[in-house]
Amino acid sequence: MLGEFVYHNPTKLYFGKKALEGLKEELPRYGKNVLLVYGGGSIKRNGIYDKVVAILESCGKTVTEDPGVMPNPTTEKLAEGIRLARAANVDLILAVGGGSVCDYAKAVSVSVHYDGDPWQKYFADFEDVDNAVVPVGCVLTMVGTGSEMNGGSVITNRAEKRKIGHVFGAEVFPKFSILNPEFTFTLPRYQMVSGIYDIMSHILEQYFSGEDDNTSDYIMEGLLRSLIHSAEIACKNPLDYEARSNIMWIATWALNTLIAKGKTTDWEVHMLGQAVGAHTDATHGMTLAAVSMAYYRHILPYGIPKFKRYAVNVWGVDTVGKSELRIAEEGLAAMEKWMRETGLVLKLGELGVTEAMLDGITESTLIMQGGYKVLTPVEIRAILKESL
Amino acid sequence: MLGEFVYHNPTKLYFGKKALEGLKEELPRYGKNVLLVYGGGSIKRNGIYDKVVAILESCGKTVTEDPGVMPNPTTEKLAEGIRLARAANVDLILAVGGGSVCDYAKAVSVSVHYDGDPWQKYFADFEDVDNAVVPVGCVLTMVGTGSEMNGGSVITNRAEKRKIGHVFGAEVFPKFSILNPEFTFTLPRYQMVSGIYDIMSHILEQYFSGEDDNTSDYIMEGLLRSLIHSAEIACKNPLDYEARSNIMWIATWALNTLIAKGKTTDWEVHMLGQAVGAHTDATHGMTLAAVSMAYYRHILPYGIPKFKRYAVNVWGVDTVGKSELRIAEEGLAAMEKWMRETGLVLKLGELGVTEAMLDGITESTLIMQGGYKVLTPVEIRAILKESL
Repeated sequence: MLGEFVYHNPTKLYFGKKALEGLKEELPRYGKNVLLVYGGGSIKRNGIYDKVVAILESCGKTVTEDPGVMPNPTTEKLAEGIRLARAANVDLILAVGGGSVCDYAKAVSVSVHYDGDPWQKYFADFEDVDNAVVPVGCVLTMVGTGSEMNGGSVITNRAEKRKIGHVFGAEVFPKFSILNPEFTFTLPRYQMVSGIYDIMSHILEQYFSGEDDNTSDYIMEGLLRSLIHSAEIACKNPLDYEARSNIMWIATWALNTLIAKGKTTDWEVHMLGQAVGAHTDATHGMTLAAVSMAYYRHILPYGIPKFKRYAVNVWGVDTVGKSELRIAEEGLAAMEKWMRETGLVLKLGELGVTEAMLDGITESTLIMQGGYKVLTPVEIRAILKESL
Repeated sequence: MLGEFVYHNPTKLYFGKKALEGLKEELPRYGKNVLLVYGGGSIKRNGIYDKVVAILESCGKTVTEDPGVMPNPTTEKLAEGIRLARAANVDLILAVGGGSVCDYAKAVSVSVHYDGDPWQKYFADFEDVDNAVVPVGCVLTMVGTGSEMNGGSVITNRAEKRKIGHVFGAEVFPKFSILNPEFTFTLPRYQMVSGIYDIMSHILEQYFSGEDDNTSDYIMEGLLRSLIHSAEIACKNPLDYEARSNIMWIATWALNTLIAKGKTTDWEVHMLGQAVGAHTDATHGMTLAAVSMAYYRHILPYGIPKFKRYAVNVWGVDTVGKSELRIAEEGLAAMEKWMRETGLVLKLGELGVTEAMLDGITESTLIMQGGYKVLTPVEIRAILKESL
């Protein structure tokens, strides 16, 4: 059942090989002072930095640089960004990078005109924004998080050992995002594959939840089939533009609120993966991959009809002469085979997790409501052990 | 291939049984003077008019009524709306009705601050808007056209016997739309079924076009399967809220530009149906239904792989031991069976078309590029004859 909801997604997307031309259209809408936010410097090596700076200069902008955004942006880094943005009186924050850079830009955006502690207000207390925000634009160089078209922002507090996400409202969404699939070509294969599974997991977290199936589930089946198809092509040839462009587009629609309509969702795989991430340096998508099969096999008995539907509609499992349970199980087997062929990490051991760490990871795993089964800590530990 | 595009759809949607509450949130954003646009008065009989007026009054608005918008809004009616809007110096145009009412509201919106002839500028000459527009809001009471979340506006010039659509940019999209599935419950079954086929046709026009399949095609397959499923339930019980809500949501996403990304599209079924409409009083969706089977069987040989994909992914046709052509044909047979069971008109004769009218309808049919086959006038006449 779709239920009651508001859908509002005003982000303007420029897509394709010439997408960066859109930056020239957008920049004149904003004032002179731009905070240019980016990560570890890969955009300097692959030439994207030079292209963006040339456009900023041609539009007469005064640029303040804010480099060094790390994969898990910290409260210390956030404080630095706020200082820079205030000192330069910025009119626009331009994020050039992946999800972390875009997440960080949004956190700066809502904090520049707030005098208190933004970690406390937005991340610890989940409060709404009630001050002015600085507009954010995004040039995407890595695919997966969907941050280019949503209000999500995840910040890590190292002192408190907490990593918390806040989903801001439409006024904090990027005003525009530049999506050029070629900008993702220089990403190492491991990162590409990890991003593909992050996308798949975003869809599956929303698909396997709630009992009231609706149009969102049908759209998700379409997105999943397109993702599986394009991932197979991209794994054979990472420079296949068409496959990479479909993957980029699916990533955006996997987490821009559309397919969440009418779905309860518990995001338990992300809770497990994030707990693994808190105890290791593992790449986000790979932590999700490593716990998925054990998790889904564990909850399958509580949602057999949906797992059967998944097997048939997504993996094309033949149903003739088989029980509902067997069809459902064959769907997960097909998924596991595809994950293996895609080069995903299927065991936590490969990510540096040892048996001695399982109690700690179990303790760090948030237990959510809204899926087919609310897990107990004992079940969480068993799933982690199974994934080892 | 997705290619180069801009996606920007800022319309805010309030969905569900309580969606009209959203009107109270939106109205304070606009000035005092509201033009209330509606059709033949059904909203007075079913109580929607009273609810809307009560909210307008509680928000302190001064309302100018503009009733009597006909199914195919005319240039004369448009001139009347412009006069009313100017005289009342309106700050917001609130359309309460179906696609025609919303289309008309957009045409008034772009014309109030334009001194010349809007028919000539926007519809005959397809010029862009270069003057201020009056914001439009929409309370939807009929499902099908997608006008609640796009820039489309179709106006009829009776003197010139021409009905032309202009697709305006995002600045003309409704600022907000209220989508309460219950507001569509009083629609007669014939209109409901006609609307369902209008939605299906919107998707199929975009699905059967171009050779570069991409993520849009997968999303369309999902939307089609959800539509077929919900239509079957709604035909058994038109008051099934869940089915009607899915149909309403699919209608919006079938024509709000998302699934058009990367697709060439020729919209030839709409060209045929609109030509039939120009020579009869037939309901739009039924004109599309009556020409569809003959049209699709005619173009099938030019797009066999896609028609096979349609058969398998949308209609679940079993492929074992069958040729590609046979699978493709069985897909269309399954579609025809569903259309018959849904109560759609499958013959032009039932819409008042006679053999004597075929030459005139053929002449009125625009021939489009971008599909699997550019039709000749001889082929168009043959398709119409086959549909008789």
